[in-house]
This record gives sequence, C-alpha cells and structure tokens, in this order.
Amino acid sequence: MSTYAIGIDLGGTTVKAGLVSIDGKILQQISMPTEADKGPAIVAGQIVKAIKKISSPENDKRIIGVGVATPGIVNTDGNTVEAPPNFKGWVSFPLRDSIAEGLGNNIPLRIENDANAAALAEAKFGAGRGKKNFLFVIWGTGVGGGIIIDGAIYHGPHGGAGEFGHGSIDYEGPECNCGNIGCIESYIGQKYLSARAVRYLETRRDSKVWKLVQNDAAKIEPKVLYEAAMMGDKAATEIMTEAGELLGVAISSFMNIMNFDLAIVGGGISAAGDLVFKPMNQRVKKCVMAPLRPIAQVLPAHLGNQAGILGAAGLVMPE
Amino acid sequence: MSTYAIGIDLGGTTVKAGLVSIDGKILQQISMPTEADKGPAIVAGQIVKAIKKISSPENDKRIIGVGVATPGIVNTDGNTVEAPPNFKGWVSFPLRDSIAEGLGNNIPLRIENDANAAALAEAKFGAGRGKKNFLFVIWGTGVGGGIIIDGAIYHGPHGGAGEFGHGSIDYEGPECNCGNIGCIESYIGQKYLSARAVRYLETRRDSKVWKLVQNDAAKIEPKVLYEAAMMGDKAATEIMTEAGELLGVAISSFMNIMNFDLAIVGGGISAAGDLVFKPMNQRVKKCVMAPLRPIAQVLPAHLGNQAGILGAAGLVMPE
Repeated sequence: MSTYAIGIDLGGTTVKAGLVSIDGKILQQISMPTEADKGPAIVAGQIVKAIKKISSPENDKRIIGVGVATPGIVNTDGNTVEAPPNFKGWVSFPLRDSIAEGLGNNIPLRIENDANAAALAEAKFGAGRGKKNFLFVIWGTGVGGGIIIDGAIYHGPHGGAGEFGHGSIDYEGPECNCGNIGCIESYIGQKYLSARAVRYLETRRDSKVWKLVQNDAAKIEPKVLYEAAMMGDKAATEIMTEAGELLGVAISSFMNIMNFDLAIVGGGISAAGDLVFKPMNQRVKKCVMAPLRPIAQVLPAHLGNQAGILGAAGLVMPE
Repeated sequence: MSTYAIGIDLGGTTVKAGLVSIDGKILQQISMPTEADKGPAIVAGQIVKAIKKISSPENDKRIIGVGVATPGIVNTDGNTVEAPPNFKGWVSFPLRDSIAEGLGNNIPLRIENDANAAALAEAKFGAGRGKKNFLFVIWGTGVGGGIIIDGAIYHGPHGGAGEFGHGSIDYEGPECNCGNIGCIESYIGQKYLSARAVRYLETRRDSKVWKLVQNDAAKIEPKVLYEAAMMGDKAATEIMTEAGELLGVAISSFMNIMNFDLAIVGGGISAAGDLVFKPMNQRVKKCVMAPLRPIAQVLPAHLGNQAGILGAAGLVMPE
C-alpha cells in the first residue's frame, strides 16, 4: 500500500495543504485562511485544522509525516520561527511544538523555511533531480534562495543560510533595506526592477511599454516588460536582459566560491524564460572560473507554486 | 608516549617539512629545494626525501601520518593535483600515489590544497579554535581562501571550493584574469592594490609614500603604504582603509548567503593589522543582515607562514 506525506505551505493569506505521494505528486489539495493578523497561536491553529482536514479517515493510516514550509527564519532547534515578514505580532514562536500539541499525536513533524523547502522540492522532484549540489534562487518580490549541499538543505550555523538576495554586486551601489550596499535584490527584486525600468524608459517614450501601461509609470512591472519584449520592444528587452545578466554575475560569484556548477531559478520574474535565462547563462559561462566553465549552468525551476507543498512534504520523506 | 604527524608545505621554491605534535607545535623543521622546473615526478621525489629526512629512526614509530599542502586544485579523488601555478609542465599529476610509492610504506598520507590546509590549521590550532564554521581568507599576492563547515574543510562538488578572490564586488568592475568582472582580487591583490595606490598618489605628491620609495612608483606596494600610514600619512591610510572596506564588503556578502559569523584573514597584507581590520570589521558590522550583526567579526589569522605545515599535519590527526 502506498504512503503519503502532508505538505503545508504557509503563506501570508492562505495555508495550503497537500497530500503528496512519495514520487512527488500532489493527490489532493485544500486551503484555509492564514489569519496572520490574529497572531502566531491562531495561525498554528489554522495549520492544525488544515492538517486534520486533509487527513481524512481513509488517508490517515498511510501518512508518514507532516512538513511545514514557513516564511521567516527557522531556528536551529527546528521549532522556533522568527519574524516571518507580514505576520503581525510574530517575533519568535514555537511553531513546531504548537502544531504538535494541536495535533495531539506523535506523527513526524518538521518545520522548514519556505525558500529552503522549495529548494528541496526542486532537488527531490524538480529541476535539481539527481543533482547533489545547487543554488536555488527565488526571483520575485524579493530575491531569496536556498542552498543544497550533498542533497540536503544547508542551514548554516544559525539557521538563516540562503539569503542570496543580500549578496552585493556593487560595493558602491544603493543601500539596501538590510543595511548592505548593492545587494542583488536592490537591482532586480520586483519593486527595484520596476523602478529601474521607469528610469530607463523615461527617455524612451517610443517604447511599447508606455502603450501597454497607458502612460502610467506606476503600472510598469516585470510582467509588462516581458509582454513588451515579446512584442519586439527594444527597451524592454534591454531591461530584462540586464536583469538576467546581473543575476548571472551574482550566481557566478557564488559558483566560484562554492565550486558549484548549477543554479536553479524560480519565482514570478523567472517566468520570463529565455528572455532572462539566456543572458544569465551567457554571463555565467563568462564569469565562472575555467574548471567550471564547461559545466556551469542556470536552469529554470520546474515546480512553480507547488514547490512549497512538495518541499514541505519532502522533509518527512525517506532520502 | 606522545605521537607526531608530519606536515609538508609544498612551495614553488622550497619544500618545508615539519614534525608536529598533536597540540600543534612544530618540534622540528627542515627544508629542501622544490625543483619545480624539473616536473612533478621530481617534485614528488623531493617531498619523499623531506619526509624520510624528518622521519629519523627515533621519531619513526611515533608518526601517525603525513599530510601534504600543495598549490593547485586537489581532485576529489584526493590524489591528483591539477595545474599548481608556477610549476612547470605540471598539468595533472597523481601526487599522492607518487609520494606513497616513494615512501614504500603504508603510513596514512593525505594531500590538500594549501589554502584549505591553512584554513584547517587555523581551525585546529589558530584563530578559529573552537569555531565550527568560518571563512578563511589569504590576502597577499592574490586573494585566496578556504571554507570550514562543521569543523571540516568544505571542498565543493569538484574539489575547488574557496576561491574567495573570484567573487565579484562590482558588476561593472575591471575584468579579472579569471574571466569574471570586478573580482575582489582585482582590487586588493598585491599587484592590483599597488596599482590603485599609484593612481591615487599621482595627484598627492606630498604623501610620505613618495619619499619612502624615492619617487619610484614601481616601488609602491602594501608594505610601504603600511609604513607611511604608521607615520600618519593620510593618503596611505585612505588607500589601506578602502582596501579593508572592500574586503569587508566581499566578506559580508558571503556571511549573508552562508549565514556565517566569522572570517579569519591571513596572508602578507593582513599584517597591516588594525589599519585594515578596523575598516573591514566596520564594513562587516554594517553590511551583514540584522541577525548576524551582533556576532559577525573578522579576526586576524594566528599562524602566519606556519599554517601550511600545521594544516598539512592536521589532515592526519584525530578530530
């Protein structure tokens, strides 16, 4: 009889729960409101409800464990979650213990940072299948990441590894919210990339982008840039190409230092496909050191927004 | 009866061999010419001679193993050494097997890249004692490094991890020999730092540096800059401060991504002490992410040019 794992993807507005087979198929999926504004104890309660709802009597005995992908830093104790962005009044909370108590059973239960869980999902079921070492990058609102070493999530000494968006690509660059200077996130994170595009397009009023946004600069965002580029617009293509190149520079530095030959990039903006992956790979081929050059590559993530559930479920699956 | 390990430090001109106690004291040290121009087989022979010479009959039975620190990349097989710089006709050579054959016994024998060995030396006997995770940087002719994770050398998937000098700090920076753009090495490696200093001092003819080098720009190097800075020279102080800051930026990016709180910096230029460590630490305190800020620090290496022998010996010592 086949067995399942439950994967929970905790988001700012929705708790998603999936029943996942050992080979990484989501057989059933439900969702609940997170109620993030009511504080962490209520959120934990919502997660418990979601787990109970998806553990129907006919599934119950075949479930090998529950994994939870959460925003914020998961402490090295595997229990405490610190300061998930957009969760009101959540400073530090024992999420694992709180869910375990709510479940009232001894089912294996693991908590993981959501970017790390997505990296694990790609390692187990996605673009990183069969690859033991890679950098995973989520390129969307921010630039996040996870590091897979020897097939496992690398957490770092304090549980916070993988903050790829806060590596600097310019020591004289703009100051980032995090305190660092020239962080890659402050060039290509959604908000920053949009602002760069507006500046670039101000002197290029003939760009198709302006028509697409009906001359409203506030509506310029990566999706529109992609659309314009697909219509052959030169300026939009240049902006997205540069964004891909910048990410390529940051990835190359990491590859050189860590001796990696693979990065997998997912997240909303990565949906632009070749438009960004081509310049990214060109830059990587140029910028990595000679021994890595023939093998280094950047691949698109495969799992999209299923990565949270799949990675969470993967936490409690056998190797 | 106490036991010893033999540590070999293979350099371009000299093979150094040391008899090292378990607590990291070099009890005896000898050296031999490397004869690098005669090819790898002869070099291996010189290493064997050095090992035999230091294994005097009264020491012989107490030796637990031999470690060799070598330039170049040591393959993941722990045997083959690829392209050590300044070793003529050395493309790829089975150094471990060749030494083992020359020794004709079954003594434990391990080969390691020299920067990695120095990192291990600091972990076991130096500034990293008791620390399980840190970045080791050698700041001299080039900028090299080694990464210690969970108390062990991190080699990366292809054995070449730790190329810290070839992380970029500026996506629009100068092209480095390695192919990458804006590598930290191309700002602060000895030759590059000297060239930066010459450019900076051209418009500052009243700097004490010019007197120290008798107006010969070719003689401007970090040692002279240090000397001038110690005499209160403003321009020299500014150059070295900036160099420390730049290294601080590169270290911070690594700390953010890898969640490290410690870097240890050795090598010739690091001998400038506070002059470079103060700005380096200031930059690190500013640039690392909030959770790391209270604990992140950069320390000077302790072991100087003994690090090669000690790290090599450390390879065959118990944990």
